Amino acid sequence: MAGNTFGQLFRITTFGESHGVAIGVILDGCPAQLPIDLEFIQSELDKRRPGQSKITTQRKESDTVQILSGTFEGKSTGTPIAMLIPNEDQRSKDYSHNTDVYRPSHADYTYDAKYGIRDHRGGGRSSARETAARVAAGAIAKLLLKHHGIEVFAHVSAVGKIDAPNLEGDNIAELLATREDNIVRCADPATAHQMIEFIDSVRKDGDTVGGKVSCIVKNCPVGLGDPVFDKLHADLGKAMLSINAVHGFEYGSGFGGSEMRGSEHNDIFLANEGQPKTLTNFSGGIQGGISNGMEINFTVAFKPVATIMHNQQTINAAGEAAEIKGKGRHDPCVVPRAVVIVEAMAALVLADHLLRNKTSKL
Amino acid sequence: MAGNTFGQLFRITTFGESHGVAIGVILDGCPAQLPIDLEFIQSELDKRRPGQSKITTQRKESDTVQILSGTFEGKSTGTPIAMLIPNEDQRSKDYSHNTDVYRPSHADYTYDAKYGIRDHRGGGRSSARETAARVAAGAIAKLLLKHHGIEVFAHVSAVGKIDAPNLEGDNIAELLATREDNIVRCADPATAHQMIEFIDSVRKDGDTVGGKVSCIVKNCPVGLGDPVFDKLHADLGKAMLSINAVHGFEYGSGFGGSEMRGSEHNDIFLANEGQPKTLTNFSGGIQGGISNGMEINFTVAFKPVATIMHNQQTINAAGEAAEIKGKGRHDPCVVPRAVVIVEAMAALVLADHLLRNKTSKL
Amino acid sequence: MAGNTFGQLFRITTFGESHGVAIGVILDGCPAQLPIDLEFIQSELDKRRPGQSKITTQRKESDTVQILSGTFEGKSTGTPIAMLIPNEDQRSKDYSHNTDVYRPSHADYTYDAKYGIRDHRGGGRSSARETAARVAAGAIAKLLLKHHGIEVFAHVSAVGKIDAPNLEGDNIAELLATREDNIVRCADPATAHQMIEFIDSVRKDGDTVGGKVSCIVKNCPVGLGDPVFDKLHADLGKAMLSINAVHGFEYGSGFGGSEMRGSEHNDIFLANEGQPKTLTNFSGGIQGGISNGMEINFTVAFKPVATIMHNQQTINAAGEAAEIKGKGRHDPCVVPRAVVIVEAMAALVLADHLLRNKTSKL
Amino acid sequence: MAGNTFGQLFRITTFGESHGVAIGVILDGCPAQLPIDLEFIQSELDKRRPGQSKITTQRKESDTVQILSGTFEGKSTGTPIAMLIPNEDQRSKDYSHNTDVYRPSHADYTYDAKYGIRDHRGGGRSSARETAARVAAGAIAKLLLKHHGIEVFAHVSAVGKIDAPNLEGDNIAELLATREDNIVRCADPATAHQMIEFIDSVRKDGDTVGGKVSCIVKNCPVGLGDPVFDKLHADLGKAMLSINAVHGFEYGSGFGGSEMRGSEHNDIFLANEGQPKTLTNFSGGIQGGISNGMEINFTVAFKPVATIMHNQQTINAAGEAAEIKGKGRHDPCVVPRAVVIVEAMAALVLADHLLRNKTSKL
Repeated sequence: MAGNTFGQLFRITTFGESHGVAIGVILDGCPAQLPIDLEFIQSELDKRRPGQSKITTQRKESDTVQILSGTFEGKSTGTPIAMLIPNEDQRSKDYSHNTDVYRPSHADYTYDAKYGIRDHRGGGRSSARETAARVAAGAIAKLLLKHHGIEVFAHVSAVGKIDAPNLEGDNIAELLATREDNIVRCADPATAHQMIEFIDSVRKDGDTVGGKVSCIVKNCPVGLGDPVFDKLHADLGKAMLSINAVHGFEYGSGFGGSEMRGSEHNDIFLANEGQPKTLTNFSGGIQGGISNGMEINFTVAFKPVATIMHNQQTINAAGEAAEIKGKGRHDPCVVPRAVVIVEAMAALVLADHLLRNKTSKL
Repeated sequence: MAGNTFGQLFRITTFGESHGVAIGVILDGCPAQLPIDLEFIQSELDKRRPGQSKITTQRKESDTVQILSGTFEGKSTGTPIAMLIPNEDQRSKDYSHNTDVYRPSHADYTYDAKYGIRDHRGGGRSSARETAARVAAGAIAKLLLKHHGIEVFAHVSAVGKIDAPNLEGDNIAELLATREDNIVRCADPATAHQMIEFIDSVRKDGDTVGGKVSCIVKNCPVGLGDPVFDKLHADLGKAMLSINAVHGFEYGSGFGGSEMRGSEHNDIFLANEGQPKTLTNFSGGIQGGISNGMEINFTVAFKPVATIMHNQQTINAAGEAAEIKGKGRHDPCVVPRAVVIVEAMAALVLADHLLRNKTSKL
Repeated sequence: MAGNTFGQLFRITTFGESHGVAIGVILDGCPAQLPIDLEFIQSELDKRRPGQSKITTQRKESDTVQILSGTFEGKSTGTPIAMLIPNEDQRSKDYSHNTDVYRPSHADYTYDAKYGIRDHRGGGRSSARETAARVAAGAIAKLLLKHHGIEVFAHVSAVGKIDAPNLEGDNIAELLATREDNIVRCADPATAHQMIEFIDSVRKDGDTVGGKVSCIVKNCPVGLGDPVFDKLHADLGKAMLSINAVHGFEYGSGFGGSEMRGSEHNDIFLANEGQPKTLTNFSGGIQGGISNGMEINFTVAFKPVATIMHNQQTINAAGEAAEIKGKGRHDPCVVPRAVVIVEAMAALVLADHLLRNKTSKL
Repeated sequence: MAGNTFGQLFRITTFGESHGVAIGVILDGCPAQLPIDLEFIQSELDKRRPGQSKITTQRKESDTVQILSGTFEGKSTGTPIAMLIPNEDQRSKDYSHNTDVYRPSHADYTYDAKYGIRDHRGGGRSSARETAARVAAGAIAKLLLKHHGIEVFAHVSAVGKIDAPNLEGDNIAELLATREDNIVRCADPATAHQMIEFIDSVRKDGDTVGGKVSCIVKNCPVGLGDPVFDKLHADLGKAMLSINAVHGFEYGSGFGGSEMRGSEHNDIFLANEGQPKTLTNFSGGIQGGISNGMEINFTVAFKPVATIMHNQQTINAAGEAAEIKGKGRHDPCVVPRAVVIVEAMAALVLADHLLRNKTSKL
């Protein structure tokens, strides 16, 4: 129950600290016979990798993934798929000046209190470096979804107060090309330009800023999600809230829906051959916790990164006043690198429910 | 994996349909020797009960709870506590006119598609009636928390666009008295008055409206929550998103935090004897997924109830156009009755992590 | 983790004490659309019911089961199936003389030490009465297995040192008729006669005796069971060892296999159209933890019931010497009533792995 | 649910095939601050290592373990402990002659049927090589138990029909020294001599033989184990039955208990200051599924290894008759190397229940 496992049937367990030997993941429950495309897994990791542009941390990690088990001749065998990502640029000395103080809005104090022991090297297990393991496993989840025609797409929908317009168009390949065409990973080029300029100015201030990532899922079959506790959006919400720095989650009409009336919010079913469609989609593709075949959409709010280049007042482990210097390497805004993490976690939830749904009826 | 179980060590499994014989819950993992106050459990259920005021559904249910097992001479024995709540006012005929059509923004279609069988009597398992079982179990969670000095308090913080001011004051007993003094369960009397008038007008329109519930937790010990996937706020988020009609969750700075800079968002530790405190609390009492001893706070967004008194276009199971009549009994706004559900789910999450934390160190 | 739940996808949670209001079970994960035959469930309970013959306890319980949820018009709906069995003949006063002493080889002392509270009425949760709930859920598991053509059959294969010959013949219906034709539930009539006489003489001595139950599974599909920890026989073993009074489990060649050589123990595959068969079946139908399509067979050893009609030396809760009187009602030999419990637990394991196996490959 | 995870609070997930890059394990839930003695872990692995004597397989593996995460300055941090054991002597070509045929009493056929894909290199995931990962994690479980004064000791109690006398003496250190003094790992030197000679003769015949391992646990606190499904002996039984080649498990009086009468089997409590003791211990230290403070004891039956040096008739994947040659490297008798695996699995179960028991009462 130590909380390092996610998913029920398509289940991952991650390990590793930011400044240890390696991080990694065991994926258990991947069905046999799925082609495992190592290049695709690596390309996903490359989107999360530090040092990829001027608006991300300059920590250098190639994040090269190695598969240790669970595949044979390029396909999954049904046994656990273990993946390892060695840590390269550990540079623990960057952190040696902070061994005794609690960095504000970091996990230093809570870990110390909980475990009575503190790996002060860059946050240890609380570092967002752990999410690389999720991206590797999420890439395999995406391969499984793709096999079933399901597509997951996320992009940066806000940086600070700069909001992108809602996504238009149904072509994920096109959206993806547009998104990858700019370093902030927003699918709207004009907004992307503004966001990049803003992040760069924040970076020059030695400061950080928050943002949002929005995600859509296309071609999700009807029936994923379980009633009551494991509603599809509840599992998506938990998945997103488990990502470092996330402070909010909404799907469909979201917080705005709380201001609406039922008569405008209800999604009217349209007479249709084949699978029903609805006129509007305030339900966000999920009704009663179960996917209804419409586009699933949700948004995730990220707080600003806590590591800043300013000196800050704080306390040490003895409770005494101390000052923390603004050193180290960090992201001025986490959302460009978080896009692929959001997609990975969404893919893991969907893959899990895809398998779970296989036993819903005789 | 059918999703009717919640929690790891303090674990509930619920059962029952809105129009069946009874609903109920098994709570497994409650530590032995906890005094079980049946009157308190019943008083919690009374706050969720239908028919309690003019702004709630007029369905009549006394929601009388019976404990079937797990207690002896007024205390928990460590074995499963089963609780039963018989259904009284089932009135299935109210629903007999809707057996073949899919109600908009309900779970009718998705359940039918998932299971190939549909209990058309008022939503069956997807009915919010299931939450009575959660409230009963949540009441026992509250008793456990109270034993450890922890208090959970929620109230209605918004109805439509009417927002309540932020909670002030530390005295939960006072807040509770104020809240229970009005039928909308808002801790600010002036706002409560406005909300009630608004809901009443919406009801007269045969319509419904959404709203928000905000929750705080006082005296939470440091150390609850687990790193990585089972972060305290991730489990709280899932708990809230599993409640019927919830479309959004945020904690601490929430969505607003995505617009802030790190230099303003960081919660500075204050030199202090005893447990550290922070100057601000944008972290919402949780850092790195672990409680830090400050007040925990979060907000939950509810969409408007889908059952309205208007006729609506829809389709039947054959995909043909159909009309649904506005009949039946329903809540014009779900949040007044949801307050105690939010508290119950929060209490269940906290009780679970309280137990889980007992093994975090030697 | 309090241990009252069994199974992963076809999952039961039981509750209730022997002298409380009722016992019961929630079955979560039963696929929708399975016809639920209440008469069959009741007939299974009747085989476990006390008071059914002169060689079982004379406690009177009709063990009438009621379904509270999860079915609609005679079929499972995919939602939790809750079943309730009220306690009728509680007669707690029979136990009032033993409130302070620890009965030898019962759970009185260990429960008291573990929970610090003791429901002294007849063993509380440790009573074998709890197994009625398993039989009710196991009956539904059998209905699911039957839908897939799988049959489970157990009988009494030993009472004390009286062993039955190995089962012959493939016709489960015939074996069942023979077994139910005698009160000891042995499929060999001559041995049954001996066993009954022996149990009756033990009963007259105020004593008890142990025995064995053997079980076979016919038409099990190839592929059930998971490698490594959740091997099919490991889950069967745990299921059996969780039944009150069980002290041993073996499958296939069992303990005898430890004396054999590989050259005699290996089950040679036979060239065959369709599904492979083996010349011998020392593997007991399971290889590498996975069913191979041959008959599954295993044997379960039960210790003698601890309640005897003799006075016994013991201690009280203060550690002082005390004497316990031989009173109360009990079974002189538990195996005749255990046959259906063994079948129920086997059916639950197989149903669970049947569902689990649906996701083993693309 | 793919079955590669064991334990609830002290939980391991293993990965790796016998002929892949590496095998390994993630241990999640180890309390923080436990000194992690890498030399001890390695010494445990050395006892399971192949090639350690003339009566074990000659496969060469140093089984050098590496800790990747979860420790800091020699102590556990509360985060997942990942351990890696590279495969060295993979020699897949030894198996290249058997790619298409199903080896008798191996998992070749069942894996192929279940997954539709077969890693034919020496059994893949079904190889007992996987148990090295369990031994590494079990060593840490032993360190936790040792911290609480609990000792686990197993030895070879039978090879074929050669039985060792029951263990005498309470000094685990002495028993251990005696056991490690002979290559068969029997704590009775005279019997050990006979066993070794017998195994050697079987080996020269190109054959294999089964055996038994018996295990005792000293100083187990009262209260471990949960009522109903997760009884301590049920979890021990599953743990043992999950080890390759195990066909039977018994504890306390075991199968012999099924022949006894209650009046002789009941363990009479003795008046005693402090923790109660019993006159006899047919309960094997466990009553009602919960440890009672007496010595825990159980025995595990292993079938003979299926790989023999004789040619055998079999079939290929097309169902046609084929012959399999007696080649490769294997153990003539698996029990000497299994002793430490039995201990490891027992330690994992005890460590898990030690943590679980921390929440049994207020």
